Amino acid sequence: MLGKDCLLDHVAIAVDDLEKAVETYEAMGVKFQEEREIIESQGVKTAFAQVDENAQLELLGAHGEGGPISKFLEKKGPGIHHLCFKVPDIEAKCKELKEKGFRLLYEEPAIGAHSCKVNFIHPKSTGGVLVEISQKMGEI
Amino acid sequence: MLGKDCLLDHVAIAVDDLEKAVETYEAMGVKFQEEREIIESQGVKTAFAQVDENAQLELLGAHGEGGPISKFLEKKGPGIHHLCFKVPDIEAKCKELKEKGFRLLYEEPAIGAHSCKVNFIHPKSTGGVLVEISQKMGEI
Repeated sequence: MLGKDCLLDHVAIAVDDLEKAVETYEAMGVKFQEEREIIESQGVKTAFAQVDENAQLELLGAHGEGGPISKFLEKKGPGIHHLCFKVPDIEAKCKELKEKGFRLLYEEPAIGAHSCKVNFIHPKSTGGVLVEISQKMGEI
Repeated sequence: MLGKDCLLDHVAIAVDDLEKAVETYEAMGVKFQEEREIIESQGVKTAFAQVDENAQLELLGAHGEGGPISKFLEKKGPGIHHLCFKVPDIEAKCKELKEKGFRLLYEEPAIGAHSCKVNFIHPKSTGGVLVEISQKMGEI
């Protein structure tokens, strides 16, 4: 039943204070990697925990002001921000989704955490959920 | 890095129309099981898709009026409702979480989808996310 075209890559949660949130999730039993990644272009600092064979939990703290996470936190407060599915060929997937009428956030895939190529499907197209699609660089 | 105490069991999304939402996610590439489960006690109808070795995507439609999903949809509209982690011993986990100061929704675990024993950690304890913990019946 598990197709390579629908693997959950991560669930991303916007948090007010990254290290405090890591501490809270660790108290619940979720173990985080020690590394933190800053993605300057998106104004976020991230922490990852492996929660299944492929799936990770990603905590997103705002890095600087005016970025999308900073705006999300101001508007909605902390909470689940998006889901991400791993796709084998992001250009083909974006083309297919556009043809099916899904609204994508970027005209061309951008570079996300772990240097993946990513795009986002607008919540209006998915029934309320911001859905990221991601391809690991070097994978076909 | 993947502990048995922090496995993602599912991500649950509240939707206005269950079959329409299944259709939308299938158009994105996520394959759903044909079975639907109604949990009368919680006023929900569910559809599941396997998205990793353990993790499933659960779509939650309101079944009847006045249930928690019906209220969530009225208040917030469709979107991600909760995350669920699989735990080996839910009674021990609930005791540990209470001792650590986490606020649980039920005094004793209830019966959820797939006849699992479940409880929920209040979003105020987790930094904004409703977190379910679940133990498969028969598992130790």
